Amino acid sequence: MIKKVNTMSIRRTLLAAATVVVAAVGSPALAEETYTLRLAETWGPNSPILGETTKHFEDMLEMMSGGRIEVRIDSANKHKAPFGIFDMVRSGQYDMGHTASYYYKGSIPNAMYFTTVPFGMLAPEQYAWFYYGGGMELMQKVYEPYGLLSFPGGNTGNQMGGWFNEEINSLEDLDGLKMRTPGFAGEVMSELGVAVTNLPPGELYTALERGTIDALEWVGPALDFPMGFHQIADYYYSGWQEPGAEVQFLINQKTWEELPEELQEILRVAMRTAAYDMYAKSTNDNAQAWERMKEDYPNVEHKVFPPEVMDALRETTHRLLAEEAENDPLAREIITSQREYLKTVRKWTNISDKAYLDSVADQ
Amino acid sequence: MIKKVNTMSIRRTLLAAATVVVAAVGSPALAEETYTLRLAETWGPNSPILGETTKHFEDMLEMMSGGRIEVRIDSANKHKAPFGIFDMVRSGQYDMGHTASYYYKGSIPNAMYFTTVPFGMLAPEQYAWFYYGGGMELMQKVYEPYGLLSFPGGNTGNQMGGWFNEEINSLEDLDGLKMRTPGFAGEVMSELGVAVTNLPPGELYTALERGTIDALEWVGPALDFPMGFHQIADYYYSGWQEPGAEVQFLINQKTWEELPEELQEILRVAMRTAAYDMYAKSTNDNAQAWERMKEDYPNVEHKVFPPEVMDALRETTHRLLAEEAENDPLAREIITSQREYLKTVRKWTNISDKAYLDSVADQ
Repeated sequence: MIKKVNTMSIRRTLLAAATVVVAAVGSPALAEETYTLRLAETWGPNSPILGETTKHFEDMLEMMSGGRIEVRIDSANKHKAPFGIFDMVRSGQYDMGHTASYYYKGSIPNAMYFTTVPFGMLAPEQYAWFYYGGGMELMQKVYEPYGLLSFPGGNTGNQMGGWFNEEINSLEDLDGLKMRTPGFAGEVMSELGVAVTNLPPGELYTALERGTIDALEWVGPALDFPMGFHQIADYYYSGWQEPGAEVQFLINQKTWEELPEELQEILRVAMRTAAYDMYAKSTNDNAQAWERMKEDYPNVEHKVFPPEVMDALRETTHRLLAEEAENDPLAREIITSQREYLKTVRKWTNISDKAYLDSVADQ
Repeated sequence: MIKKVNTMSIRRTLLAAATVVVAAVGSPALAEETYTLRLAETWGPNSPILGETTKHFEDMLEMMSGGRIEVRIDSANKHKAPFGIFDMVRSGQYDMGHTASYYYKGSIPNAMYFTTVPFGMLAPEQYAWFYYGGGMELMQKVYEPYGLLSFPGGNTGNQMGGWFNEEINSLEDLDGLKMRTPGFAGEVMSELGVAVTNLPPGELYTALERGTIDALEWVGPALDFPMGFHQIADYYYSGWQEPGAEVQFLINQKTWEELPEELQEILRVAMRTAAYDMYAKSTNDNAQAWERMKEDYPNVEHKVFPPEVMDALRETTHRLLAEEAENDPLAREIITSQREYLKTVRKWTNISDKAYLDSVADQ
């Protein structure tokens, strides 16, 4: 390695030192400023996977910046507004947020496509779309009017279709079924006759156990395990509704612009790595949790919805998306970009990973 | 954002300035040193995907360090030793390398498991193993005796099984088949009667066209496309031999130790992001290239090997791996770790991504 003292930098250092003396009597300092980023997260304190991601992000950022950036994370117990992150970062009350864009359908409807879409892309396909297929540019187009920057913030992996007390063998079995499933998936399900209910997380276990609800969808093995659903429901269905749910980092544009260029890049790369690492962590934790569920409760059965149910879910999804596209040109642009990209990238997934997984399935 | 002038830092800055004045008359400077990392890559100049990865790494590193680190990349045309990266980084001739660990089976046999293993993990499964399943620790155990650090350097995605002039319908069709397929996959193929040949890349097209060889395995659509194989072979088979090939960054331990802590972290995170980004870029480029191949040459057919061929390939792979495990305790430790991890993580992949891909395959 070639190491040298950079004379340009020496001049900068001397200048900075001189400036700092001036700064003491009121002028802005050019160097050696530290920045504290206040980050609000949707999750509670020490939340598995999600909370680990913000802490991991904080560690990387502080270490890479040599202490020039500090992050102060407020969890939901502190700010009391888990679904108010968008507003709090927009107003400048917080510099950053860690949340999911589809929570803000009410305030910013076109944001929802950047988390995941039913029958959409898997995480690796979606990262390719974000970074090399125009996704980042579209996301920025949605957030720019609000003075915000948005970045991928971590993937949960493919989410499961949920826990069911009874097998689903036909479309009729969905009719009148009481199920907790929020958001866009809930809209689709309710079109198929499901009685969609919403309940606070703390009441889900008891509601499922007592038959107040027949089914519920939460996330995937890693986050479902601590909820205990595998102890009371026999059927765990594969998903369709969130094939690659990506949470997000939000940053107030003014905060971003005040940072020197190298700290902007450190921040950008720390977010990007934290996001990818969350996907790897989700993969690991989902695998371990699923194994443990099966060991502790061998009666838990993995199931897939029958083709007629999947077809109906898919047709309904496409119909609802087409309605959104009709009402809003930017929605149409995003939906079209995702659909076209998916068509191309899925052909590749099918001849590579899918063909491989099929060929070794009996292993 | 809370911005403040750090008085500790001011003192450091003043001290650094003072020190730098001293440095001019011969003392070591404490701050504002710049570091030039000489990096040798296996690839030629402007190599798609692989060469883009080292340039992307360089950009991130230089920007995040505010110019304190520079990278000087030498491609194969410069150093003339594409498969000598391990030795050149080990000796300190270069600070870093970008290469693939399985090229060094001769010098460091246990390194090969960290690229990919036939019938092994897909990229997302393997990243989970590297970072959360003990893979990094095992890799370091292999490289430490050589004074080297090794990090994941980017994934090609699932590699294709290769281009064939004739369909493979049975094990007999492999008998006497002249095929270019190097490394461990070549060993497996030759156990099944394939006449494995090696040819320089520049001769492959002509050899396949003239029937000097009947088949060849290169990488995947993105890197196969510029070689033109789709113009002359009809059958493109799904793979089994490199389900998630990860190239690597190598760093000389002394170089690493000379860097200040925050630059070590910047370097570590830049490598990690460059690697993940290469996987996303591979996904994108493979998808685009496969689409283009099919448009330009609609006669190209995607194929999968029949079950009897896949079974024979798998059994042979496991037999050869068992022999390696028997001869070397560290090889056994790595092979066991990978096999156990795969068993757990694949169950998760099967109930999530595989179940989903199966259910929408007719889309």
